[in-house]
Formats: sequence, structure tokens, C-alpha cells
Amino acid sequence: MCHTVPVDSLDHLVRCGWTPDGAADAHLPAPALRWLRGKTGLTEKSTPVAPDSALPVGESALPDNVRAELAAVVGPERVLVSRADRLGRAGGLSYVDLLRHRGAGELAVPDAVVVPGSPEEVQRVVEVCAAHGVAIVPFGGGTSVVGGVDAVRGGRPAVVVLDLMRLNKLVSVDAESQLAVLQAGVVAPEAEKLLLPHGFTLGHVPQSFERATIGGFAATRSSGQASAGYGRFEDMVEGVRLATPRGEWRLGVAPASAAGPDLRQLVVGSEGTLGVITEVTVRVRPVPTVRRYEGYVLDGWNSGADAVRALAQGRVLADVTRLSDPTETEVALRLSSGWTAAALRRFLAFVGHTEPCLLILGWEDTSKRRLRDRRKATLRALRGFGALRLGRSTGEKWRHGRFAGPRQRDALMDIGVCVETLETATHWSRLSELRSAVRDALTTTLTAPGRSPVVACHISHAYETGASLYFTVLVPRTDDDPETQWRQAKAAACEAINPLGTITHHHAVGVDHAPYLGAEIGSLGVEVLRSVKSVLDPAGVMNPGKLVP
Amino acid sequence: MCHTVPVDSLDHLVRCGWTPDGAADAHLPAPALRWLRGKTGLTEKSTPVAPDSALPVGESALPDNVRAELAAVVGPERVLVSRADRLGRAGGLSYVDLLRHRGAGELAVPDAVVVPGSPEEVQRVVEVCAAHGVAIVPFGGGTSVVGGVDAVRGGRPAVVVLDLMRLNKLVSVDAESQLAVLQAGVVAPEAEKLLLPHGFTLGHVPQSFERATIGGFAATRSSGQASAGYGRFEDMVEGVRLATPRGEWRLGVAPASAAGPDLRQLVVGSEGTLGVITEVTVRVRPVPTVRRYEGYVLDGWNSGADAVRALAQGRVLADVTRLSDPTETEVALRLSSGWTAAALRRFLAFVGHTEPCLLILGWEDTSKRRLRDRRKATLRALRGFGALRLGRSTGEKWRHGRFAGPRQRDALMDIGVCVETLETATHWSRLSELRSAVRDALTTTLTAPGRSPVVACHISHAYETGASLYFTVLVPRTDDDPETQWRQAKAAACEAINPLGTITHHHAVGVDHAPYLGAEIGSLGVEVLRSVKSVLDPAGVMNPGKLVP
Repeated sequence: MCHTVPVDSLDHLVRCGWTPDGAADAHLPAPALRWLRGKTGLTEKSTPVAPDSALPVGESALPDNVRAELAAVVGPERVLVSRADRLGRAGGLSYVDLLRHRGAGELAVPDAVVVPGSPEEVQRVVEVCAAHGVAIVPFGGGTSVVGGVDAVRGGRPAVVVLDLMRLNKLVSVDAESQLAVLQAGVVAPEAEKLLLPHGFTLGHVPQSFERATIGGFAATRSSGQASAGYGRFEDMVEGVRLATPRGEWRLGVAPASAAGPDLRQLVVGSEGTLGVITEVTVRVRPVPTVRRYEGYVLDGWNSGADAVRALAQGRVLADVTRLSDPTETEVALRLSSGWTAAALRRFLAFVGHTEPCLLILGWEDTSKRRLRDRRKATLRALRGFGALRLGRSTGEKWRHGRFAGPRQRDALMDIGVCVETLETATHWSRLSELRSAVRDALTTTLTAPGRSPVVACHISHAYETGASLYFTVLVPRTDDDPETQWRQAKAAACEAINPLGTITHHHAVGVDHAPYLGAEIGSLGVEVLRSVKSVLDPAGVMNPGKLVP
Repeated sequence: MCHTVPVDSLDHLVRCGWTPDGAADAHLPAPALRWLRGKTGLTEKSTPVAPDSALPVGESALPDNVRAELAAVVGPERVLVSRADRLGRAGGLSYVDLLRHRGAGELAVPDAVVVPGSPEEVQRVVEVCAAHGVAIVPFGGGTSVVGGVDAVRGGRPAVVVLDLMRLNKLVSVDAESQLAVLQAGVVAPEAEKLLLPHGFTLGHVPQSFERATIGGFAATRSSGQASAGYGRFEDMVEGVRLATPRGEWRLGVAPASAAGPDLRQLVVGSEGTLGVITEVTVRVRPVPTVRRYEGYVLDGWNSGADAVRALAQGRVLADVTRLSDPTETEVALRLSSGWTAAALRRFLAFVGHTEPCLLILGWEDTSKRRLRDRRKATLRALRGFGALRLGRSTGEKWRHGRFAGPRQRDALMDIGVCVETLETATHWSRLSELRSAVRDALTTTLTAPGRSPVVACHISHAYETGASLYFTVLVPRTDDDPETQWRQAKAAACEAINPLGTITHHHAVGVDHAPYLGAEIGSLGVEVLRSVKSVLDPAGVMNPGKLVP
């Protein structure tokens, strides 16, 4: 099921599943499993795991002359056409992707994987493919959960994955301006390692942190768990270098400008449809030396959301501010700690809350005094909302398990659970309505005789004017067509979101959200995107089928 | 020279000069004048002031059928073709515009002024003009200093100014989300008046505050004096409503989104070339109840810039943070207070500084404690830079005179001074180089026998990664061709800026910066802008000659 891709030094990337070999947190504690059975009707039929050899992979359709031209650019050993290499870059890591890799559903497998080693080589690869009308899928960590790296041919004779793993360098650091230039293929932990000797951090920590890349963050407008403190990734991007079929495009000369529309904001979020991001100039900050994470409990969703709104509008958000609804609070306690029902009842009785909502607050800073002052300001604004302090152990527990969510998906899928997430954002005045609408849509479509979904939700990103909502769904999968089971639920959720909020707050559009983009940006917006694409990618080879409906 | 336009309630707008009648701060104190004479070689030949009747204004070329169609939309009394009405919207308020209104140089006078009363009427006006190929110049406060509202026909048979003064309403307030919808023609002081009963403020205070409009702020990516605290205007824009020749385009459903490129950032900064912004959804904040402004002096530009960088990178900027270089510090003291040379010498000796740089810090907040805490944090970061405290009177003096700069231009022009400003921004590591390059370019081109320019500079906007530089130039004007005198200096400054920073930090592109945009965003960037325009404005009638070279 998993393909290790031993190209250069990045063989720690285990493709096609979230769980690195031997990761200890990938297993479900027995009490969690019991709870899940009782709650959802799970009968633990295991999801089939197809051996690699059973997955249908056609012959590579890459014409020999194109292959030769690509080999002339990157070297023949960097144009990979083996079954394993192609399977290893067949799609991202959504539930549907994982299902397909388990043999349920058809994989879109690229005809080849090209692994250039510099922005210049990327530029030439793009030009060779464009000249021959071969589709290109830029590929970083491969962590898309919206079909963003699906190897779609889009009517072209062949599609190659352009794997950026060799663009793994820190190009330069401008310490005075707190700026760093990073190549697009640098994975997030590696970026931190490279910046550390200079005393800097990026501070960008999405749940995909362990695998996702700098280029991917920029291409998808990523948002991290600490974005309240460090900003969304697009806020950090000061400059980009984009390899387009029309040539290289560089943007970004100042922290702010009134020189017309901000074209960087066109490239950021372009999801590989305009070109390949090869370098990103990012704002960096001194590495924090002190850190404090705490857990709190509020009673009821409305009370919790009001508290987070008070922090956001008072501009005293902790760097990490994350509010779980009662369902997610229960899931978190059950799945992560394996609490027994009795222990959970005791806990709820102890805190005297009927609808407990877990609030994680985390501060990171370069000075103890400053952290103390900021924490004080946050807690002052929290007064009056009845927040009960759980202490640092809860906060630290969350911090240590912050990347465990995706890993548990593999374990859950192993026992036949359909597990997926989706997210949106809207203004505060519509937040509760949006949460209800999405919950209802998911619950209605996924409920069946003997089968009940768990729909959990949290606010992970709060702004002065609104917040994001992140949903996690757990439901026993159907035997016959598990992909359709989820697709129907997802469609219902998207239709519920469209009139009330954005179709995606930080997962991007990809293939999955493309049908819903027009309702958000209007038909003129779609025409504008198409027109920009026609300038930069006249042959239409860049990441077909993504973003633009 | 000045035209009062008595349409509806906005007759307080006195066009074609910065000075409202009877404004007390428009006159130069005698000692300031003496200083200016000595410094620049000024001989006080007064700049000619042509009577309106002497200005060449051709017949309106607006075809009768178009005029009739426009009249059918807005009413015949809202299609203005009188000489005074057309002259009153002939260009903005740059030095060159003012020269032309004084009879030196040719004015681009619109063929008519149309004054619609609602977004729907704007939409229909745009469609009528597009259908007949008549150029449209959207016009708010008319405060452009880059030719942004010049009535350029751009090869069209006629050009109309679309005056937004009647779109002067607060449409709605969403107090929970701290959002307000304002019509585009609301002038900034009026916006504050409209928001006040709801307890909110926009906090956007550019030097053009008294006249500039919400739509103009959005169209030009405006930045205010308190943008360190409130953000640049584009940071406040959550949604826009744009009347394009292809129909209405609405954007903005959430505070943040990963649904592809941020198309709001295409509209923001589009300078009327894509359509007319009719409504803006803006983030608002509670009205501050406490305020503290102070003056400090630092010794030397480098020391001052380092101090401001420390505040920005420590994220403890005051809401207003403004550092003048030694020349501007002297100008400020001379022109605003009329200090004598002796008094100034005594002051400098007193502070023991050889190159004094004035630093204005201003905090505004809703709580005394919070303001105190924030001020403490700012001042803590300022330690070690040798800042000498001048106290609150200096700060308050600056605050009271914050809009006086443009007004003094009229008085200075009256006595034959060429007075203009320009601005840029770059990263910290290039800031001093950029300042020197622009100073040198301006000084070299403007120096002539018996004539020396004063080139003053300040940082008005600081970011973690860089800052803006704002230059003020004072030089005796030439007798024969004052427009060319300034154009040559401006061209030299722009050529100095191009390789080092952005061509404009908050004045926008307009006509004046269009030739330099390509060097900043690349030929692909220019093509992208043209292509977006071709989608929304296929007939090319929207604000010809602006933005795109």
C-alpha cells in the first residue's frame, strides 16, 4: 500500500498513507474502539488493502521523444517511469485517495515522474512539457486532501508529475529584513532545521507539517495551527518565483505596495495551474525561547465561540487558539486518551458542564516577560465566559499529539471507518448557522440503518471579523461503494457551505471544490482566472482539472 | 482657480486646490519664508494664477444620444456639462495638476460629469458608456497625486467623469462581526461620523483624509497615518462590489479563504481600470477612548531607522510611528512653527544631537491600561537607541497639523515654490541605499544656478521586513516650463526607485507611475493585468491610460 521513493535524500517520505512506519500513535486504544462501535454502529469489517501489484496501472503514455528531452534536462535517472514511482505520486492523501490506494476506486497514475534539481531545470521541464502538450502536476509533499495533485491528463496525451523534492535548499537569509528565500520543495521540518542556525523560524505548523512543502503552502494558501500568531502563509510570502510555460515570473520587492493589484496574491493560491512555484521569499521571526500551552473548558458552543470572538476582536488571541465543539471534545478525549465512559462522566460532573468545549491556548515567544504579559491579556479577555482551566498538561498533550490526527486515519480505515475532514470560514454573525448547516448536511447524508456518523467541529483560526470551522467525520463505511458514500456527504456539505461561507479556508480547491468555486467568486471571477491562465499557460498543461471549474 | 461643485450635500468639497476657504494653517509664517529663501534661493516670483475663464476648455464632445441615455439613467440634472463642472473634475491634486489649474500646462477636461445615486445607477452608467465606447473616469475625492483621475480619452470619442459623491451612505453594520458596508463615495470624515453612533471607527487616516473616499482608498491600496495600528486599507477590505462593463462583480464571503487566488486583491488597487467600486465591506473597530501622542528625537537617520525596525520586528509599533530624517525634521520645525534659526540652534544644542530625527509615536485604544501596557512595550524596545523624549506637546502638535501638509502646498505655490511628494518602500536591508539613491536623483536634477532643492524624507509605515520612504521636495520653480522641471526630477527618482523598491507604497500608479510598473511586475505581470482588463472591460473604456503601461 505504501511506496517509499528513494530519490536523493528525501526517502523519509512514505507516500500513500499518513503513517510513517512504526509511528506509535497510529493505533486506536481499545476503549476508543468500544466507544466508536457504540456511537456509530461500526462492525469492524476491515477495509480491503490491495497489494501494490493488484492496483491497475497502465503503460506509461509518455512519448519517447518527450522522455528523451526531459532526460536531457534532468538526467535519465530523474525521469522515473517504474510502476512503483508512478504509483507513489498517484494522488494525495484524502480519504478517497487512500481508498483508491487500497484498491477501492480507480487511481489516476502519472505517466512519469520528473525530478528536476533547480529552478532553472523546473523552468526547462515546464517548457518541454508545454511544447509537447504534456500535462504537468507539480508535486511537493503530496498531502493534498482535495485532489490537488491528482494526475489528471485533462485531454492531454500524457501527464507527468513534477516532483520538487530536490528543490530542498535555503537559498539566502536577509537577517536585517527577517526574510529568507526557500526553494519550493523544502519540507516544513527541514525549513525549520535550515533556519535554526540563523536564529529564525517560519512558525508555520499545519497538521500536514511533517510532510508538506514551502511551495505547497504558497500554492494552496495554507494556514497553520499557530497562524493566529504567525499569520496565514500568504501573509508571510514576500516574493515568489514561478516557472510558467511563458517563462519565469518573479514578484515581490517590498513588504507593501500600491503599485496596482497585488499579483503575488494571484500566484499564492494558484495551485499549480499557472506555473510551478520554485522559490518563495518568506518573512521569518526569531525562534521562540519560551512556550506555554494550556487547556480550558467552556460550557456550550455559543459560549466558546463568543469567548474566541472576544479574544480575536480584542486582538489578544494566543498564537494557537483552538476551540472544539462538544462532539469533538468527546472524540478528542476518547480517541486520544482512551478515557472510559465512566471516567468521562466523572470528568463532566467534576467540571459541572453539560456541553463541554475544549479550548487550547498556546503562546510562544522570545521573552518570558512578554509571554507572561500576552497571556495575562488573553486571560483577562476570557473572563466572564466561565472558562475552566485544565492546566498545562492538557495543553502539552494537545501539542505533542498535534500531528497525530492524520495518522489515526490509517488505523481507522483499517477497521472500516470512513474518516475525513472538511473546512470553511465565515463572518462571526453567520458562524453558528454555518456550523449547523454543515453538521445537518453531513449527518443526514451519512445516517443509514445501523450506521450513525460522528460529526465533530472546531474553530482553529479566528479573525476579528470571523472564524474558520473544521469538521471531522467518522462513520462506518459502506461495503459496496465507499467512495460514493463520502462523495455524497461531501457534496451536501459543500452545497450547505456555498451560500454561507467560503468553500475552503485552508485546504484549497483542487478537483474536489472546483464545482463550488463559481458560486463563491462569480462567473466573472471564473472568467478572470481562466484569462490569467491563458496568458501564463496558453497550452493548458499546468495541473489540469484543478481550481478552475 | 477653485470650483465649488454644489451637487447635493457634498458642496463642502472645494476642488482644484488643497485649501478649504479660510483654513488658518494655509499660510507660511514669515520666519519660515526667510528660511526657505536662504535655503533654496527662492526669489518669490509668484506663480501665475489664471482665472477660470482663461483656462482653455473645448466644447463637450459627448454625443447627444449618449447624453440622453445617461440622463435617462440618472436624470438630466445629473449629467453636468457646464464649463465649471467639467473644470472641477479635470484631474487630481498633484503639483502638476495644480500648475495646470493655474494656467501653466494643458488640462484634460472631461466632456461631462455624471452623478449617479446608487450602485445600480453606476452599473447602468457604465454599461451605457461601454456600449457607446465612451471613456469613464471614476471620481471620488479627486485627491489623486499620480494622475489617477485625469480625464484621459484614450482614443475614445469622449470621456465622462463618473462622480461618486451621491454614493454617500452607510449601507449596513454587522456589529457582531465588526463589519460595515459603505458606499464608495463616502468621504473619510463622513464615514467616521456614520460609524460613530454604532461605536465603530475605520481608523484610516491618510493625509488626504478630509476629502478622500472609501472607494478611492480601495481602488488605490491606500495607507493611513495610523496603518501600523489599523492596517493598510487593503487589510480592512473584506468585500467589494464592482460595476464592470460586463456586469456587477461581488467578492468576499469570509475573513480568509483558500479558494484560489484572492481576487479581492485584484480589485483592490485596480484604480478604476476594471470597473467602478460601488460598495466596500470593511472591518471596523471600537472607537478608541484614550489617545496619546508623543515626540522623540533620535540622532542620525541610521539610528532612527534601526529604532523603528526594532519596534516593527518586536511587533510593538505604536499605531502611528513616523520618523523624519534630519532635513524633514528641520523643515517640520521651520514651516510648522516658524522657529527662528537661533531658536533652532538652541534646540539642537540642548538635545546634543548633530543630526536630529523627529520620531512621532501615537497610541489609540479603548482602555487606559491597555494603552499604558502597549506604550510601555514600545518604549522598552526603544531603549538603547538614545531617543530623547520631547513630550506630548510635540506629539499633539503633529496630530493637530497632520492634514496641514497638502494645504501648505497652495501657499507655497503662491510664492513660486515647486512642492511635491513621492514615496516608495523596500526591505530594511536596502532602505538606506534607496533613500540615498532617491535623494541624489532629486537633488541632482533640481539643482541649478541660484536654485537648491530641499529634499526631506520620512518613514511613515514600518513592517517587520521593511518600511516606506516618503519624500517631500521644495525648490524654486522655473519660470518657463515648471511642469518639465518637476517631470524630469520625478523621472530620475522613479528610475532610482525601480531597481531597489516599489514604485509606490500608497499613492498608486495612475498615469505617472505607469511607465515604471513593468520593471516591477515584469512583462508577464503587465500581460496578466491587460488580460484581466480585457475580460471585465472588453471595450477598454474604464479609466484609460491609468495603471497598465
